[in-house]
Amino acid sequence: SRSLNLAVIPGDGIGQEVVAEGLKVLSAVLPQDVKLETKEYDFGARRYHATGETLTDADAEALKQHDAILLGAIGDPSVPSGVLERGFLLKLRFLFDHHVNLRPSKLLPGVATPLAGQPEIDFIVVREGTEGPYTGNGGTIRKGTPHEVATEVSVNTAFGVERVVRDAFARAQARPRKKLTLVHKNNVLAFAGHLWTNVFNAVAQEFPDVTTDYIHVDAATIYLVTDPARFDVIVTDNLFGDIITDLAAAVSGGIGVAASGNINPSGEFPSMFEPVHGSAPDIAGQGKADPTATVLSVALLLRHLGHDAEAVRIEDAVSADLAERGTLPARSTSEIGDALSARVAG
Amino acid sequence: SRSLNLAVIPGDGIGQEVVAEGLKVLSAVLPQDVKLETKEYDFGARRYHATGETLTDADAEALKQHDAILLGAIGDPSVPSGVLERGFLLKLRFLFDHHVNLRPSKLLPGVATPLAGQPEIDFIVVREGTEGPYTGNGGTIRKGTPHEVATEVSVNTAFGVERVVRDAFARAQARPRKKLTLVHKNNVLAFAGHLWTNVFNAVAQEFPDVTTDYIHVDAATIYLVTDPARFDVIVTDNLFGDIITDLAAAVSGGIGVAASGNINPSGEFPSMFEPVHGSAPDIAGQGKADPTATVLSVALLLRHLGHDAEAVRIEDAVSADLAERGTLPARSTSEIGDALSARVAG
Ligand SMILES: CC(C)[C@H](C(=O)O)[C@@H](O)C(=O)O
Ligand SMILES: CC(C)[C@H](C(=O)O)[C@@H](O)C(=O)O
Repeated sequence: SRSLNLAVIPGDGIGQEVVAEGLKVLSAVLPQDVKLETKEYDFGARRYHATGETLTDADAEALKQHDAILLGAIGDPSVPSGVLERGFLLKLRFLFDHHVNLRPSKLLPGVATPLAGQPEIDFIVVREGTEGPYTGNGGTIRKGTPHEVATEVSVNTAFGVERVVRDAFARAQARPRKKLTLVHKNNVLAFAGHLWTNVFNAVAQEFPDVTTDYIHVDAATIYLVTDPARFDVIVTDNLFGDIITDLAAAVSGGIGVAASGNINPSGEFPSMFEPVHGSAPDIAGQGKADPTATVLSVALLLRHLGHDAEAVRIEDAVSADLAERGTLPARSTSEIGDALSARVAG
Repeated sequence: SRSLNLAVIPGDGIGQEVVAEGLKVLSAVLPQDVKLETKEYDFGARRYHATGETLTDADAEALKQHDAILLGAIGDPSVPSGVLERGFLLKLRFLFDHHVNLRPSKLLPGVATPLAGQPEIDFIVVREGTEGPYTGNGGTIRKGTPHEVATEVSVNTAFGVERVVRDAFARAQARPRKKLTLVHKNNVLAFAGHLWTNVFNAVAQEFPDVTTDYIHVDAATIYLVTDPARFDVIVTDNLFGDIITDLAAAVSGGIGVAASGNINPSGEFPSMFEPVHGSAPDIAGQGKADPTATVLSVALLLRHLGHDAEAVRIEDAVSADLAERGTLPARSTSEIGDALSARVAG
């Protein structure tokens, strides 16, 4: 019989609540013959305050033993900005070489969007996850003086760009529209821009059936609100991807339904799946959080591990649930989880 | 009698057409006793193709003799991406130390927005214009090989950050709401983020009546579509400013009405005013371009030179014109210019 050995990181704030519902739906959807094992890890603000640790070598070794990782949210106002982000979230992306940061955006029927006229939105962003300005390169001289200079270095390698661009082309090829848009700022960031554009054009030769397109990141934000239907698959660098996927989430139903995967395609390290939203400490512990983004992240996790049919069942359940929401009274976090569990089981 | 000695750079594509209307409205609004002198410069694609030049030392010297510069648009598909951007637009911002890149966003009554529910939008972005990832620092090794590494260095100085932050605080203080939001990504870009945040907090002490706020750039894109009313004045770095001002323009009526100023506040060098839109070669020469963004850039120019009353008259004329547009048949570029001229003169 098959097994699924999952590391679970509820984390901070609403992380606990939404992860519980994600696991509920996961149990409900998995076939009888798949044995689900989960181990919970206590990363986040509490652990940091208790021990000063964010992610130790031993932690990383332990996480490596799992098939995949499900994360709720990490971050709390009691911890200085950046400590948990760089000490845990980004550290894990780099340690586990999560170079494909996958963020689908689909505006489902019945879901509210800030855009007028309910446009068609159905694209995925493949964000590079291990390079760019996220590498921590850079530094400061004369700190705190009127002569301080602080630098941030965006590092881009042919190796790193090619593998994520190739992944994005393959994803585009597998979709009906087969269209891939490179988003960068190659008219200004000419060194990195030249590398990205060149690699993109070279890899495109191997995918003659994929239509390609290039847009500057500033213009991409315009199209995301005026003509999001033009996008099918987008590939972009780490920072541009961070920015446009928050905007993409906002226009396609909000971060309450935005899922993401931090993927190591080779399987050398476990991939991590998490909702795009944060820990939302203001509503934590009140049963107000929407677990949908976590549930959709579970679907990405299942698809990554080859359980495609189960992923589709979750996505269909979410679509059906969202389509009905407008007609229902507000439900708690666990009521939404129960409803989704019933749908995937049924 | 007073004088206004203007350098005019129509540039490429629709630049010619919109600048003509900007000058028409400028002539109509200026008081009799202000003598308007204009000198046209031929920068852009034609000059580049004819001579290979984008902006020579002699050109820069000539431009320095003017009180201000009005620019239409620079850029043409016949010129490789980046050549005119870096060789002209950015070169001028750096040469003339245009460190305050001013971009107001106001959704005027009657103007279409992609956002549902016609939200209130009235904020200005103060984008740093001479530092960040725009400095051209960085490089490439092993170019064109599978081992290529390309870097881009964001350079941030206490000097550069402080002057633009101070400018933004002063602008916030002069507005009724007196609120300034710093947009950065200090949880990831910790070196630059620390400098920006520290300087921001230090300068805030001098403006106790200004309410301050901090948002990560990714979250800022969400608020720009879900709650743009929360913004009054935003200060941010060169690249984040580039990205969020295109989005800001999109939600507040589109780039057809988005004006900008590249300002050297000390007056050591002339400031440059230009519409945010580009040269739009697809509609050039057809009288289809909307000159409103250029006309509003003329208003920014007038205000910068102390002609506040004339700036207000232009802005009022534009508001009145836009409010009527829905009820009028489509007009040509010059018809809109004529209508605005009549309003400011009357
Ligand atoms: C929390 C932060 C480090 C992270 C990022 O910038 O990547 C987040 O914004 C995201 O998009 O996953
Ligand atoms: C054309 C380009 C160099 C420029 C920029 O990136 O600053 C433009 O996008 C702008 O916003 O003025």
